[in-house]
Amino acid sequence: MQSLQHKASEWSGVDTADAFAIDDTNLFQKLGLDAFINLSTNFYNRVYDDEEDWFRLIFSNSKKEDAIQNQYEFFVQRMGGPPLYSQRKGHPALIARHRPFPVTHQAAERWLHHMQDALDNTPDIDSDSKIKMMNFFRHTAFFLVAGDELKNPNQQVACKHATSKPAAE
Amino acid sequence: MQSLQHKASEWSGVDTADAFAIDDTNLFQKLGLDAFINLSTNFYNRVYDDEEDWFRLIFSNSKKEDAIQNQYEFFVQRMGGPPLYSQRKGHPALIARHRPFPVTHQAAERWLHHMQDALDNTPDIDSDSKIKMMNFFRHTAFFLVAGDELKNPNQQVACKHATSKPAAE
Repeated sequence: MQSLQHKASEWSGVDTADAFAIDDTNLFQKLGLDAFINLSTNFYNRVYDDEEDWFRLIFSNSKKEDAIQNQYEFFVQRMGGPPLYSQRKGHPALIARHRPFPVTHQAAERWLHHMQDALDNTPDIDSDSKIKMMNFFRHTAFFLVAGDELKNPNQQVACKHATSKPAAE
Repeated sequence: MQSLQHKASEWSGVDTADAFAIDDTNLFQKLGLDAFINLSTNFYNRVYDDEEDWFRLIFSNSKKEDAIQNQYEFFVQRMGGPPLYSQRKGHPALIARHRPFPVTHQAAERWLHHMQDALDNTPDIDSDSKIKMMNFFRHTAFFLVAGDELKNPNQQVACKHATSKPAAE
């Protein structure tokens, strides 16, 4: 099977170098904590008000303020700031922690639609940083779609309907 | 169900604060790249020579030099150095990438046994850093054991033998 990373690049149209161009500069030092809090607040305000029930309901078991904190702490940690997320929750383990949710291609696109809107409405993030962040988000969203598909081969093995496939690179 | 993090702390005996004390100082700046390469080389020399077949065979589909590179690049990235791992392979996604392997309690203890030996035989790592790193490794090993157990509830759902459980926090 193709690697997670290969699928993420193919489906997102963003190669690894562009996805991780967020590491070329320290975005946390450049933007500051408030920019990240504002971005995640803008994002989840849109998500929790989404007129599309199928998408909004994915988040219905989480409190909005918790979702905001989990997200901005991870972004801060990943983009050059202090490891706020790990101090509170440990390893990001992105695929495993998204396991309870249906991370489909359609859900990834809806997530990215709201994130683009949120970025466009967060004036404390400059346009170059927005492009880098959006490439990272787009690649990561489809990395999680690839991770979501790992759930299925395993089910098939358990039921003896199909042969097993190696799950990750 | 208990969170991944809670299980990791309970089974390892290392709480989150101690596990992530690796972030108190920049270990990459303190130790340098060679220390990480030496550590992973020492570690995998032991693993690939393990007299315990059940453990050695877990690694038999990977080349030793690839295993060494994957490991030290992740350690460097996680401990304050450049994001070598993500530039080449993307998100660490620790649980998902360990999915093909049987990460049992017994395997975690064997991994940690070799890592303690490897640390003890890497003179370019000072004793304070060794303690911090070992706490991180111990916690992470059992975080992966907790992640490994996520594979099973899903199989049960697919076969309709049991009710679903939320898989991650």
